[in-house]
Amino acid sequence: MDIREESLKCHGEWKGKIEVISKVPVENKRDLSLAYTPGVAEPCLAISKDVNRSYELTRRWNLVAVVTDGTAVLGLGDIGPEAGMPVMEGKCVLFKSFGDVDAFPLCIKSKDVDEIVKTVKLISGSFGGVNLEDISAPRCFEIEKRLKEECDIPIFHDDQHGTAVVTLAAMLNALKLAKKNIEDIEVVVNGSGAAGIAITKLLMSMGLKKVILCDTKGAIYEGREGLNPIKEEMAKISNLEKKKGTLKDVIVGADVFIGVSGPGVLTKEMVKSMAKDPMIFAMANPVPEIMPDEAKEAGALVVGTGRSDFANQINNVLAFPGIFRGALDVRASDINDEMKIAAAKAIASLISDEELNPEYVIPAPFDPRVAKAVAAAVAQAARDTGVARI
Amino acid sequence: MDIREESLKCHGEWKGKIEVISKVPVENKRDLSLAYTPGVAEPCLAISKDVNRSYELTRRWNLVAVVTDGTAVLGLGDIGPEAGMPVMEGKCVLFKSFGDVDAFPLCIKSKDVDEIVKTVKLISGSFGGVNLEDISAPRCFEIEKRLKEECDIPIFHDDQHGTAVVTLAAMLNALKLAKKNIEDIEVVVNGSGAAGIAITKLLMSMGLKKVILCDTKGAIYEGREGLNPIKEEMAKISNLEKKKGTLKDVIVGADVFIGVSGPGVLTKEMVKSMAKDPMIFAMANPVPEIMPDEAKEAGALVVGTGRSDFANQINNVLAFPGIFRGALDVRASDINDEMKIAAAKAIASLISDEELNPEYVIPAPFDPRVAKAVAAAVAQAARDTGVARI
Repeated sequence: MDIREESLKCHGEWKGKIEVISKVPVENKRDLSLAYTPGVAEPCLAISKDVNRSYELTRRWNLVAVVTDGTAVLGLGDIGPEAGMPVMEGKCVLFKSFGDVDAFPLCIKSKDVDEIVKTVKLISGSFGGVNLEDISAPRCFEIEKRLKEECDIPIFHDDQHGTAVVTLAAMLNALKLAKKNIEDIEVVVNGSGAAGIAITKLLMSMGLKKVILCDTKGAIYEGREGLNPIKEEMAKISNLEKKKGTLKDVIVGADVFIGVSGPGVLTKEMVKSMAKDPMIFAMANPVPEIMPDEAKEAGALVVGTGRSDFANQINNVLAFPGIFRGALDVRASDINDEMKIAAAKAIASLISDEELNPEYVIPAPFDPRVAKAVAAAVAQAARDTGVARI
Repeated sequence: MDIREESLKCHGEWKGKIEVISKVPVENKRDLSLAYTPGVAEPCLAISKDVNRSYELTRRWNLVAVVTDGTAVLGLGDIGPEAGMPVMEGKCVLFKSFGDVDAFPLCIKSKDVDEIVKTVKLISGSFGGVNLEDISAPRCFEIEKRLKEECDIPIFHDDQHGTAVVTLAAMLNALKLAKKNIEDIEVVVNGSGAAGIAITKLLMSMGLKKVILCDTKGAIYEGREGLNPIKEEMAKISNLEKKKGTLKDVIVGADVFIGVSGPGVLTKEMVKSMAKDPMIFAMANPVPEIMPDEAKEAGALVVGTGRSDFANQINNVLAFPGIFRGALDVRASDINDEMKIAAAKAIASLISDEELNPEYVIPAPFDPRVAKAVAAAVAQAARDTGVARI
């Protein structure tokens, strides 16, 4: 049985990967009168006087909603909200197992940006944070932007920022090996959906100057016909030399290739055309933009993929559990760029200079040190930037 | 320390009465590939082909949303959505402890009927049922009605129907003791909010003919000025003799008093004016419409209250966990009157004729037989009325 068939069988046996349990006893009248009426009136009144006490007297302090509309689930595309639920439950499992965060999955039956924003906003008082998941681009950008404006709890679209944080972490260590500075290098990001755009923005906030985003039509540059608003925005701040052409054209001389696109689009010839010691992050799943052995044959110094069967797995689970753990720990009102960068640096720093080598630029997903290190760094960055509320 | 102060202290220590846990291991790559990517794609695809499989492959089969807008929390009134959360979490605890139902609390930051309906509808695909809670009348009626029309999962406003079911159960046994038939008796329901109206409707669906609803202005009758739409509707089907006047006037000769109003509004004199063997259900909390000893001194055959320190406690916990357990077990699309009546009869029937006496017309909240008996009866009624889907 292959892994997908076996997973289907397991899901049928599990009948749900999460469970909502009671933490308090209700075995007699006294229990009932403390956990429920009449005693419960007192914590209710305390919260009605000061809504901040909802973080002390209910589960809100540890609770994250995992929200999708089912439009971009894995590589499966728009399969509908209910069909996205196995992924959302899986995400909740990872939140709990890696970050001790209580996460609850909500699938929204709408593709309308206004409806999704309103729905999440209206239930945001029940949660300490919201993780958006598998919402298709470019809707995901507007949904996240508006929710960040309208809610007072952290809103985090993991497909964007989780991927960006882990990619940055791997790149920081790869740059160390290549002895290059982020300010000087040239990066090509192939794929301009949620992940590609977030990666580009985060790298730029770290000092990257030369970066070209590509979509299926090739390099994105200011003035290209038919760009959607977010690509137009990116065209203004990236590819300042306005290079045109396909990936094959613009990859020439680049130091880093970041792929969040499709299988096999990067050839050995393209790798050979890059600068010395090229770094390749080929994250298309399950088949990467180039297979690691091919990339290495073509001269790549470091290769990372999304897969667990190769070295340097770029896996979001390295980021989101610790990021939310840290944000919740200080009751952050937002997850800002400084917190994301702190997370990336914390992940990268777990590999010592002695351990660092081309096959090991990023910790393994099950490295038990990761979530704690990320949480501590994120909490500190939240304090430093004034978004911590305790 | 009184119970409310102690409850506040407990809530501060509990930091939430529920927890979302993982049911599956994620300790290695293989676990991860079964519970998450890449394996999880297969259950996702299965659901996208047949949405019913969401009940087999995710937690939906056992999951109920406990939804409030915080407008009628306990006797505290409109204290806001976040402040309602300790009650909602308490409800979730009871769902799990008594019915093994996974319940998750959601507080909606809106008092607008359209917004509340839309929000619940858009997330309904994540749940197997919705328990509405502590939403003020008359908005609660429209919200429930519209959600029942627009959703394909059971929608149940517990303040209405839970109370009605347990009241009916107690009354069925009280009528046995009084040797009276529901078709022949006269009932006065004092309080015409959510509970009062639902009780009246459920009793009528059981065959009750003579019933008068009162509000703070006295008896509700057809043609009375200033009735809201729901009271107008009730005026058409109840109090067919169009009796006018205060509670004191219309209680004369009645067999049953049902109070869902306020403390002390029923006097001994009023009880004395009732028919032979009057039955009193004085459910105002914490101070009932009349204290049990006074009611008995005035000749009451049976007295029930909402309080745990008197006999015959009318407590919703006797109904909602079993009702949802039964509805979920057969994947019911609705909780209809037949299912509610089946629940009431199941509760009443747990007291044998030998055990039945004026101090014991309703099982205790902690009677372990209740939820199972209710669930079985509700599931059967769902099958009999064609709303069961498995």
